[in-house]
Order: sequence, then structure tokens, then C-alpha cells
Amino acid sequence: MTSRPDTPLLDTVDNPRELRKLEQPQLRQLSDELRAEMINAVGSTGGHLGSGLGVVELTVAIHYVFDTPADRLVWDVGHQAYPHKILTERRDRIRTLRQADGLSGFTKRSESEYDPFGAAHSSTSISAALGFAVANKLQGKPGRGIAVIGDGAMSAGMAYEAMNNAEQAGNRLIVILNDNDMSIAPPVGGLSAYLARMVSSSEYLGLRTLASKLARKLSRRVHSGLEKAEEFTRGMVTGGTLFEELGFYYVGPIDGHNLDHLIPVLENVRDSEQGPVLIHVVTKKGKGYGPAEDSDDKYHGVPKFDVVTGEKAKSAPGAPAYQNVFGETLAKLAESDDRICAITAAMPSGTGVDRFAKAHPDRTFDVGIAEQHGVTFAAGLAAQGMRPFAAIYSTFLQRAFDQVVHDVCIQNLPVRFAIDRAGLVGADGATHAGSFDVTYLATLPNMVVMAAADEAELVHMTYTAAEYDDGPIAFRYPRGNGVGVDLPEVPQKLEIGKGRIVRHGTKVAILSLGTRLQEALKAADQLEAKGLSTTVADLRFAKPLDSALIEKAMRDHDVVVTVEEAAIGGLGAHVLTLASDRGLMDAGLKIRTMRLPDAFQDHGDPMKQYDEAGLNAPQIVDTVLTALRHNSAGVEEARA
Amino acid sequence: MTSRPDTPLLDTVDNPRELRKLEQPQLRQLSDELRAEMINAVGSTGGHLGSGLGVVELTVAIHYVFDTPADRLVWDVGHQAYPHKILTERRDRIRTLRQADGLSGFTKRSESEYDPFGAAHSSTSISAALGFAVANKLQGKPGRGIAVIGDGAMSAGMAYEAMNNAEQAGNRLIVILNDNDMSIAPPVGGLSAYLARMVSSSEYLGLRTLASKLARKLSRRVHSGLEKAEEFTRGMVTGGTLFEELGFYYVGPIDGHNLDHLIPVLENVRDSEQGPVLIHVVTKKGKGYGPAEDSDDKYHGVPKFDVVTGEKAKSAPGAPAYQNVFGETLAKLAESDDRICAITAAMPSGTGVDRFAKAHPDRTFDVGIAEQHGVTFAAGLAAQGMRPFAAIYSTFLQRAFDQVVHDVCIQNLPVRFAIDRAGLVGADGATHAGSFDVTYLATLPNMVVMAAADEAELVHMTYTAAEYDDGPIAFRYPRGNGVGVDLPEVPQKLEIGKGRIVRHGTKVAILSLGTRLQEALKAADQLEAKGLSTTVADLRFAKPLDSALIEKAMRDHDVVVTVEEAAIGGLGAHVLTLASDRGLMDAGLKIRTMRLPDAFQDHGDPMKQYDEAGLNAPQIVDTVLTALRHNSAGVEEARA
Repeated sequence: MTSRPDTPLLDTVDNPRELRKLEQPQLRQLSDELRAEMINAVGSTGGHLGSGLGVVELTVAIHYVFDTPADRLVWDVGHQAYPHKILTERRDRIRTLRQADGLSGFTKRSESEYDPFGAAHSSTSISAALGFAVANKLQGKPGRGIAVIGDGAMSAGMAYEAMNNAEQAGNRLIVILNDNDMSIAPPVGGLSAYLARMVSSSEYLGLRTLASKLARKLSRRVHSGLEKAEEFTRGMVTGGTLFEELGFYYVGPIDGHNLDHLIPVLENVRDSEQGPVLIHVVTKKGKGYGPAEDSDDKYHGVPKFDVVTGEKAKSAPGAPAYQNVFGETLAKLAESDDRICAITAAMPSGTGVDRFAKAHPDRTFDVGIAEQHGVTFAAGLAAQGMRPFAAIYSTFLQRAFDQVVHDVCIQNLPVRFAIDRAGLVGADGATHAGSFDVTYLATLPNMVVMAAADEAELVHMTYTAAEYDDGPIAFRYPRGNGVGVDLPEVPQKLEIGKGRIVRHGTKVAILSLGTRLQEALKAADQLEAKGLSTTVADLRFAKPLDSALIEKAMRDHDVVVTVEEAAIGGLGAHVLTLASDRGLMDAGLKIRTMRLPDAFQDHGDPMKQYDEAGLNAPQIVDTVLTALRHNSAGVEEARA
Repeated sequence: MTSRPDTPLLDTVDNPRELRKLEQPQLRQLSDELRAEMINAVGSTGGHLGSGLGVVELTVAIHYVFDTPADRLVWDVGHQAYPHKILTERRDRIRTLRQADGLSGFTKRSESEYDPFGAAHSSTSISAALGFAVANKLQGKPGRGIAVIGDGAMSAGMAYEAMNNAEQAGNRLIVILNDNDMSIAPPVGGLSAYLARMVSSSEYLGLRTLASKLARKLSRRVHSGLEKAEEFTRGMVTGGTLFEELGFYYVGPIDGHNLDHLIPVLENVRDSEQGPVLIHVVTKKGKGYGPAEDSDDKYHGVPKFDVVTGEKAKSAPGAPAYQNVFGETLAKLAESDDRICAITAAMPSGTGVDRFAKAHPDRTFDVGIAEQHGVTFAAGLAAQGMRPFAAIYSTFLQRAFDQVVHDVCIQNLPVRFAIDRAGLVGADGATHAGSFDVTYLATLPNMVVMAAADEAELVHMTYTAAEYDDGPIAFRYPRGNGVGVDLPEVPQKLEIGKGRIVRHGTKVAILSLGTRLQEALKAADQLEAKGLSTTVADLRFAKPLDSALIEKAMRDHDVVVTVEEAAIGGLGAHVLTLASDRGLMDAGLKIRTMRLPDAFQDHGDPMKQYDEAGLNAPQIVDTVLTALRHNSAGVEEARA
């Protein structure tokens, strides 16, 4: 590991109160040290780098000018908040980022009073800041709501809804648009083009003049609030009509790395009686670290790396990532089927859609951070005879739940949902876990829900979904790499609602959906060693259920256990409902459902997360043995 | 009933092909007849009146100018589509609107090829139209996508997401903004103010001049596409910067009742090679029917009425509507608790928030059609110590599902969800049914889920929610009027996770959640008459479950039946999961779960809908008797 950088000034600043004691000329040095500290820390832990590097000066300036934590600062998404964490009493733990029991990779209320609102999904910050501003207003307290939001996050409807409601907050709401022309992938759409035009306009080039003019005016002693407001709105405005039309005072664009511009503008906004204000700040993702600035994704999310060379730690070569298996399979299928198209919501590489895009650019649609639109757009494509695949993480598909219900399922349109990151997600933590999709999809009439047990199954399911034109169909698969099975040369069209028996036994039946199949097989080995002959089925479908397979399993075994990487209301609930509908438990049936716990699990090592959730082989074995010991009076018998 | 109007010209026009054979000067007469026919029809059926009256001329003009159904016309929300239905081969059934087996009150794919995309929830039209446009482009077909969307619907983020993606469709996408300054309630927010400024600007007053200029230019024989585009974008544009910045060609504002303006503008847009185009049309909700024009809500949704006097049929005086019980209870609680505030998404009267607003205007927030923002804004308020109630219909809360998960539940913030229209909704049909909330909420860690069995329970639950600061809490209640019980003078704070035994028995236990309690009690009477002593419990909570009550019910009775007005994955699934977790079924337990069917139910008479769903007393009795006859081999024994 590279040795720690020298940070003499930063060493004296543990929180914003200490920061505010510094003289303004010292902030340049502080920012440089903060940047060096952050690069060093992320080099040792991995994590989000580019976003944080882009907002080092902005972070310093905000905490210097505003009265945090009384002024409520909300970082949109939160993955740019590492410098903020260092400056707000968490420097001592910054090298535990994203580790088990360490700091979260996002803002988190339980971590610090300087994190008034947690985040991780994008575009929530303006709504939350507005809530803080209005609550303070109602309570007669002084605090403002300050949202820092990226240009990519501005493409989400939620940000627009909030802007449309902002006027009521008056000068208590400040929105800082952090425009780096880049979220995870380059941004798309009309808003992005609009911002680019503003930044490249000649007025922007004249910013220095404007800034010095502003500085001169600021040096005057006496100001009326109105004069001040007039100054920055008239003096600094060089565009921003769109925001002004929605009721904001627009200020910008401003160089987000120039503290001599940032500080006076923020001070002026702070002291203004007018509002709400939107400050358009232009930054460079990855700023100040060559390897990041030069890379395509600006080191958005990185593994551990060598600070000097920028060389990233390589993961062991292994099975391909699920997302890439999906993307490549779909690209191949589309060679002979020109109805297939792919939709991603600003996640081309995360979903593997980038691999599809290379081969079929005109059938690839990156809609920006706009899952709602993406799903209904897909429904429109399907209604006109296309075969659209909406490739969206489980956790982000929550954003489009109503569109799945109203536009897809009620109309029974054949939209295919490729649901990545289903289940636990390790270092990304609770906000990114895909825990609920089986429940919220399988409750919907017309919906077919599959889960892939391995990467070969994912190939089959992608093909099955492509060929299924009778209505909506979803298939879920986990974060990370496959289990290492061979990929099929010819994909197989699965029969809808049919599972497969992977291993035959007589005493115990384990009904697995998706990812836990390997653990179920391990459990079966261990049970077999104890003399308990065990059937293992891969149900493949949470909906429709393979009722014949399930009923037979219930009739022919002493104990039936369902296992899924999903929350209550999913496979287990559907199997139990089937059994009670048919009266299969009337005369007694030892059935247990293993699922994710009724709690949000913190980020951590994936294997430990599974242990915590109770979904590894030992817990499956234990569940079976406990059930077998359970006597008819409902109490456990003594161990044999 | 008023006699049918004379409609000699309309009688010759059953579809757009016939419409397009008329001469343009005949369209005024056709519009007048269409309006008269619609008023007469809705007078006899009840339904949405004001919206349709506002778009009579627009409907005629669109079908006259465009090549429907090859051009895909998508009406946003769809409740303004009655004139469209009359003109598209459905006039013979227009007096069956919203009746069982009759026409839907919204657009519906299964009704007509002229309804390419169903709607009912707002703000989906641009996404869907974009899907049609892009699919046609990929397939080399000629059709356009045309979305007609109200100004209120434009406040939803989804519409913005779609606009942000529109540019790729070029001239294949046409968005017609139907600006009547009114959705169901007056619109709110920055966008609405923006549109109002455009319409009231002096340029709008000069429209006649512009239109005649355009008409003169149109009479020229030779046009290059570029010239044409230049004409309407430069000639007609009098504002619209916001839309232009997002990549649209803006045309307007145009008088939406003047066919001499509408037709040439639509023709010009149709023939343009530039796009996408947004046409800003100004209409008057309720236009042409005095009683509607004069009423506050413009006869948005009406019962049957007398066409001549406008007098509406009165419903029998009865118990108060649930929404008003909620609104008035909350208003009263807020008198002594200044932390309570109420949030509605453009539904102040539908949710009863209007009654809260009268007493506490500064603590009432109508966010527009913006459920996503509304929920996260509420989370921000809660994080700053307020006690926010987000009052949202069950079906519309689906729009904010991710915000419920990510901003409320993960952070365990005490946002109160007052969920109206939970369960079946009669004439509004599948799109408005609140079927899934128990499932999608009870699967979330930290969430408390209640359901009110009657209006007195709703009072208690409103109070219980106000007093509960430990995390999120939701309470659901149905559409319509209460059952007629007395309202409590003093609301009672319910113990979280505790149900109540309403009737004691020994052989059968019915565990009811919410609205079906009355039917459960009727069923108990009928069972008792057959010698089956029956317990009835009102569980009150779907989460956390009253495990003691449930376990005792299971141990002490021969049959246990759960009843809920909710889809699979809700109460029944949670009760079964509890029973299997505890091994209560190991030795045999006759348990059945009664719930909404796995199908979207069409609009119709509420009582018949419950019969169809199998949730009335006779079906509860039948379920119990069938379960009792079910022998241990899993087959039914002969009837006693």
C-alpha cells in the first residue's frame, strides 16, 4: 500500500466548525490535502473515486459558507460524499469504507448528524431538502435545505417533480447542480444537451469578468436584500431559462474547482432573501488524479488500486459476470431476430447492455435515469410488435413499479424484464439490495417470474423470454460472477411454469428458486451423510408455480423446504398458498420457507451476508433437522 | 331521461375514415353534435364529463388530419376519450360507459384498434407514443405516435423523463399539450405558472394574426420541408422555451376550440419533416355545457344528471365517505399537534385532504401529480421532526414504491401513509383498483400495515398513526362510504400488532383484515345456523401480525380462514408463513386464505365484483364447509 500523504492542515480539521475557523486563502491547501487523502483511502479500500474527486472544492466551500449541520446538506446518490465524510468527523474510519462494519459508501443518517438524509438511489435530494426547508419554516427554525445533485440525476422525473414544487421554500432551498457531464455513463437526452449548450456558450467564457464584478459589488458594505438578489440573478445569470421557468433563481455556470469563484457566490446566495436558488457548478469527474481523469468512466467505482500508477487490483479470473452473459446472449439472439431491442436506464455497462449496443446500436435505448419512462416506452415498443428487454437492477425497477402494473401487466404486453442485482449485493448495502422483486412481481396478474440458478440458466431464460409473446415475463439473476458452469451452445426454450428435479431423494425435498441452488445441493450432501435422502428441485419459476412438481414433493417427502434469495411474500408464500388452497397441509405437512430476513442488511462481505440471512448450506441443513425434530404438539423433541 | 339530441351529421360518421370524407366547414356542425351526444350520454350513465367536453374539437381535428389508427393516438389518462370513443365505432355502446360489461371509462386496447394503448393513471402517454414512433421507425412503417396530455399530467416526472428522450423520434412524435389549467383540482407548481404566463402573454392575444398568416402561407403550392418547418416554428412560436430546451419544436398557444386554427396547424405539423413537435392547445374544461363551465370542478366526474338543468342525481344519504372521515379526523388531531401535516398528489378532495386544508392551509401540501416527490418530501419533513401524512390512493402509491422503500423504510422514518381506494373500486375498474398495497408494503422491513374494517376503525388508525413515531406506518381503507357505525368521540390509540376478537366461537375461526369484516360476521351467522360455532377476529394489522391471537386461533379451531381485499402475498401469505415458521401445520391444520383473484377485474357493480372475487359471506361459508369436508387424503368427502 502506498504510504499516507502529508496532510498538515487537514490534520487540524475534523469537522466543519474547525473548517470555518480557517482563513479563506488556506482552503486551496486544504482541498489539495483532502484530495490526496481521499485518493489514498480509496486506493486501499476500493469504492467510488471519480465523483468524490470532482467535488472536493465544492465540499470545502459548502461547509465553509453554510452552517452545517443546522443547514441540512443532502448529497444526491451519495457516492460523491467521501470528502464530506472526511470533513465531518469520519476521517478516522475512512479506510473502512464499504467494508463490513465500516463506513457506508453512501450517506447514512445513522453515521453522522452531518448526513441528515441517506441516499444511494439517485434524484431524491431536492425532495428531501425541500422537506427540511419547509419543516424548519413551519417550526420557525433557521436551517436551510441544500441539495447537491448531478446533471445525470437531473434526468429523473423525481428531480423535476421536486423542482416543480420548490418555489414554496423561498430562500430556504438551495439546489447545487453539479454538472460534470457524466453520471456513471455519459448522460443522454434533452436536458443534458441543454446544459452542454449553456456551459459552452460564450457567456460562460466571460465568467471571470462576472465573478470579479460580483466580488467588487460584494465589497460594498450596505446592501438591501433586493439589491443583492438583483446582483446575482441579473449579474451572474447567463442562461438557465429552463430552471427560471420552474421558479428558480439561476446562478451560473461557475467553475466548481475555483474556490475564489465558489465562496463568494455561495456567500451571496446564503445571504439572499430571494429563492429558491439553483447554482450551476461545472466540475470535472476524477479531477486532480490523472489516471481517473484519463479513463472513460473517470474511475466511477474502482477496486483497490496503486495510487502512483493507477493500476487497479485484478480480480481472480473466473466465471463471466451475469450481466455480460445476459448482454452477449441477447446480442446473439438479436442477430436473427430484428424485433429484439434493449433498454437501459443509464446503466449500459452495469446491465451488460453495452455488449448488446456494440452489435445493435439502433436497437439500444439508454433512456437516462428514467426507469418509469423506460418501462412504458418498452410497453409502447411491445404494443407495436417489438420484443423489448428492459434491463434494470431489481432495486431500481422499484422506481417503475406502477408502470409495470399499469402499462405492462394490465395490458398484458410482452415486455421482458432482465432483473440484475437480484438478492444481496455485498458492499453496496441495503439501498442496492434486490430483495423485493419476487414479491412485488409475483403478486401481479399476467406476470411470469423466473430466477436463474446459474449462468447457463440465464442463457436459457434470456432465450425463453425472447420467444415468449403472451405477456410480460421477468427473469432475475444476481450481482457478480457465475458459478462456473459451461455455457450452452444452443439456448433452450424453457417450458413456462415448469421446474426441474436436480437430485432425487425420498425423505427431504428442497425447493430452490434461483441463486441458492448450489447451497441447496451442498445441504443435500450433508443431509445424505446423515441418512436423509434428499430431493433438490430448481423451480425456475416463482410464477406460475410448477404445481405438479410441488404437490408431488409434498406428498412424497417428510419435510419440504423452500429457499430463495428474496423477502417474505415471494416463492415461499406462493408455495404455502398453493398448499393451503389445495388442502395439502390439512393432515399435516412439515414445510418451511427460507428467505431473506425482515430487516435491511448492512453492506458487507457477501458470504457473511448470506450467513446473516441464514441462506447458506448449514442453515438449510439446520432448518431440515429442526423441522424433523418438531413433534405434533408443536414443540421440539430432544435431539436424537 | 332527456330525449336524444338530433345529430344528422354525426349519424353518418361512425369512424375516422368517414370523418375524413367530410368537408372542413362541416366539422363545426359535427363538433356541436358530438358535444350534444356526449352530454346526453353521460347524463344517462354518469362518468367523466368536463374533460371530454374540452377536447371535442381537438378530437375531431386529430382524426380528421391524421391517419388513425395507423398513426397511434394515445390519450393521456383517458378520461377525456369519450368523444374519441363515439367517433371510433363505439357510439352504439356509449350509453354503457362504466357499466358492467359496458365500455370502459378509459381507453382500452381490447375495445378498439383506435385505442393502441390503455390509460387511466396519468402521464404515461408520451412514453407510450414514443415507443410506437420508434417501433415504426425500426420497422420502416409510416405511423406516428401522437400523445394528448393535459397540463396537470405534465407535472409528473414521468412526462418529463419522456420529453427528455423524445428527440430520437424526430417528426414521428407529436405531443399535444391540452392546457385547460385544470386537472381534477387546479394545478400547482412551477410548470403550471409557466404555462399560465405563456397563455396570458400578449403574443397569445396576437394568435389570430399569426394563424391567418400561417393559413396564407399554406396556400402557396410549393414548399420545401425546411421552409415549412421554419414557418411554424418561427411563425407560430410565441414562447415554449422550456420545451424547446428539451428538444421539441414548440407551436402555440392555440385556441383548442377553433377548428380554423387547429386544422391548419395540425396539417402543417403532420407534413413537417422536423420534430418532435409539441403543440400547445388551450381548451376550456366543460366547454359548451353551462353547468359544467360554471362549476368548480368543471363536472370532472359526475353521477347521472338532468341535461337541461344540470341537476345531478343524489345518492341516498348514508354513512360518511371514508376519505372525509380521514380528512376531518386528521384536521381535528392537528388542532392540538402542530407537527401534523398532510400531503396530497393532486387529489385534495378525493383524499379528504381538502377538509384538512381548510383548517390548516399552511400544513397542507398539494404537490401535483408527483407521488414520488410527495413521499420523499414527506420523508424530509419526518426527518426534521414533523408528523407527515401522505394521503395517496393505493393504486397511485405504486408510483412512489421506490421512495417508500429507499427513503422511508430503509431510514425508518415515521411517514404516515393514508391509503385510500384500497381494494376493488367498482366503476373505475382494474387500473384504479388498490389490490397490491398489502403485499408490496408488508414485505418491507420496518413498515407497519393496518387496514380499517369500518369508519370508526379509520378514526382510531388515523390517531394511532399520528402518535406512532418509531417508523413508517400505513393504513388502508376502501373507496366509498362507511358501513354506518357511530364515530368515536375520542379516538383510541391501538396497540401496534394487536388484533381484536369480534365474536367468540370454538370450531371455525375467520381472521379478517379490513373491509371484509361485515361479510365475515354474516358468514359466522350462517355457519352458526349450521351448528358451527365461529370466532371472528379483526386482525387490524397485516404487519406486525398478532401472532398470539393467530396461534391461539389455529390451536383452538378446526378451520382457520383468512379474508382480505388484497392480492396474493398479503395477509394470507404472512399468516401461512408465520404458521410454517412455527411448525403449526406440522400435525395438520385446515387453513385457507381468501383474497383477490389472480386476474385484473373489469369495472362493474361493486357487489358483483366482490362475488366475482369470491369475498362475500356465501363464499366464506362455502370455503369453511369445503375445508371441513376435506379429508386427510386431500380429497373432498361426500356432503353430510
